[in-house]
Amino acid sequence: MHPLEAKELGVERTVYLNGAFVKESEAKLPIFDRGLLFADAVYEGLGVLDGEIIDFPRHMARLRRSLGELAMAEPMSQDAFFAVLMELVARNSVREGFMYLHITRGTADRDYLYSADLVPNVFAFTQPQDHQGADDAPKPLSLHSTPDLRWARRDIKTSNLLGQVLAKTKAHEAGADEALMVAPDGFITEGGATSFFIVKDGTIIARPVSNDILHGITRQSMLAVAEAEKLAIETRKITLEEAYGADEAFLTGASSYVDPVGTVDGKLIGTGEPGPVTLQLRREYIRAARANVYRPG
Amino acid sequence: MHPLEAKELGVERTVYLNGAFVKESEAKLPIFDRGLLFADAVYEGLGVLDGEIIDFPRHMARLRRSLGELAMAEPMSQDAFFAVLMELVARNSVREGFMYLHITRGTADRDYLYSADLVPNVFAFTQPQDHQGADDAPKPLSLHSTPDLRWARRDIKTSNLLGQVLAKTKAHEAGADEALMVAPDGFITEGGATSFFIVKDGTIIARPVSNDILHGITRQSMLAVAEAEKLAIETRKITLEEAYGADEAFLTGASSYVDPVGTVDGKLIGTGEPGPVTLQLRREYIRAARANVYRPG
Repeated sequence: MHPLEAKELGVERTVYLNGAFVKESEAKLPIFDRGLLFADAVYEGLGVLDGEIIDFPRHMARLRRSLGELAMAEPMSQDAFFAVLMELVARNSVREGFMYLHITRGTADRDYLYSADLVPNVFAFTQPQDHQGADDAPKPLSLHSTPDLRWARRDIKTSNLLGQVLAKTKAHEAGADEALMVAPDGFITEGGATSFFIVKDGTIIARPVSNDILHGITRQSMLAVAEAEKLAIETRKITLEEAYGADEAFLTGASSYVDPVGTVDGKLIGTGEPGPVTLQLRREYIRAARANVYRPG
Repeated sequence: MHPLEAKELGVERTVYLNGAFVKESEAKLPIFDRGLLFADAVYEGLGVLDGEIIDFPRHMARLRRSLGELAMAEPMSQDAFFAVLMELVARNSVREGFMYLHITRGTADRDYLYSADLVPNVFAFTQPQDHQGADDAPKPLSLHSTPDLRWARRDIKTSNLLGQVLAKTKAHEAGADEALMVAPDGFITEGGATSFFIVKDGTIIARPVSNDILHGITRQSMLAVAEAEKLAIETRKITLEEAYGADEAFLTGASSYVDPVGTVDGKLIGTGEPGPVTLQLRREYIRAARANVYRPG
């Protein structure tokens, strides 16, 4: 059941807000929250599979990096975060889906400059799986290319997401499943909320991490799986023309794992069906996610 | 008295939220507000002088443009906005200061894609003047140049403001009053929360509006004043080197009017004291603001 349908039926999610587990309709922040006024906030999106959080330590490492880049303090320990998120998984009976964790710099009268002693606002919630599940035969997705309008620090996972909202809206209006963002220099950066890869002559081609793209956690885990599988990997930038001519293309994302791409701008990628490298990566990524369950201490 | 001091004394501002005037500590939005999750929100900042709102119709025209660029509906009429803002001015006894008006796309479970029938969240609040007042002899400000990290649609006044937060924080850490943002091509875009201009050989030089800068309302009104005063105006891009060598430099902003710049990166601009063109523009801008009081109907 979708959570909004559940809400109409009087069944609400339990969410986390600043130390308390509350009903979703009761979770509110002041209009003077800096996340609301300045998008002065970072977040993580985590996949849940078999009731366990996928890649938890890697997400926490990225969260610590995001906080550090913005000179924000860590509001709680890794194991305290784990306890909060697992409590949400349990209270909302999530078997497979998505977890969202958001940290703002805190609440203060509106001023671009902030005081170092602000108390962060922290909230988290779950969502049921709205992508194809880990045990489904994956369907190929359609991508629509669009200019990458985002700022210069895409490596920090912040709530400055209007560029992605506009890109994904344009893709949706064009009838596609996901946006494919292209920088002014003609090179593909990434998907609207996913990392993008192609396969050519058996080699996986991945854009190297920099400030120009998000350092995808599923990207990182997928590349570790590819190495373990002894697949060839090349890290370099990819043009749109090169993507059109790829043998395979795929996306990675926290709750979508490894998703095959069938078309880009209506052009078939390979046969348009999921390719063998993509299917191998998806299968082995999901196998590794299930095998590597995090436990504190 | 600063509002947070007032709050400690038990005297709170009255703010506006979704149809109601409430105490500032009671104004809260759901964590599922899209402004909070995606910075999917626009705003206006307006100056208040002698208890009147400066340049109200121009701010409303820009607000309508921002909403239109994001395909957001106008939540109320211009005169309804005026009534809300003037009520806040009255309830908070603002003679000179700042008004903030914020509109988010609305509340929904987290999804980049949005439904067209969302109900916007609207809030507004006042701030007392924290810049030099209209009747003060203006002191020259110090600027610190820093790379412009922002996204490609700076013409839309959205809450994706982390680039400005970082720029102004860097300027503050360098001991300067304001940031001066410089694009990768070497040309100055604007101040951290102000428009930037220089004067050379009696001519005001202004960067032309485009998607690269905010279409400043005080900029627009100042240029109208300059025209009425028969001052020479040239619209073209300015490099940092050219700014260092200017006769005068100044900033415009909704509650700071026209502010003289004394130094950029520690280098004196002209003599470092407010120049004659800057002082004339400040005086005539404030005179025009006082003369052109908006009344509905």
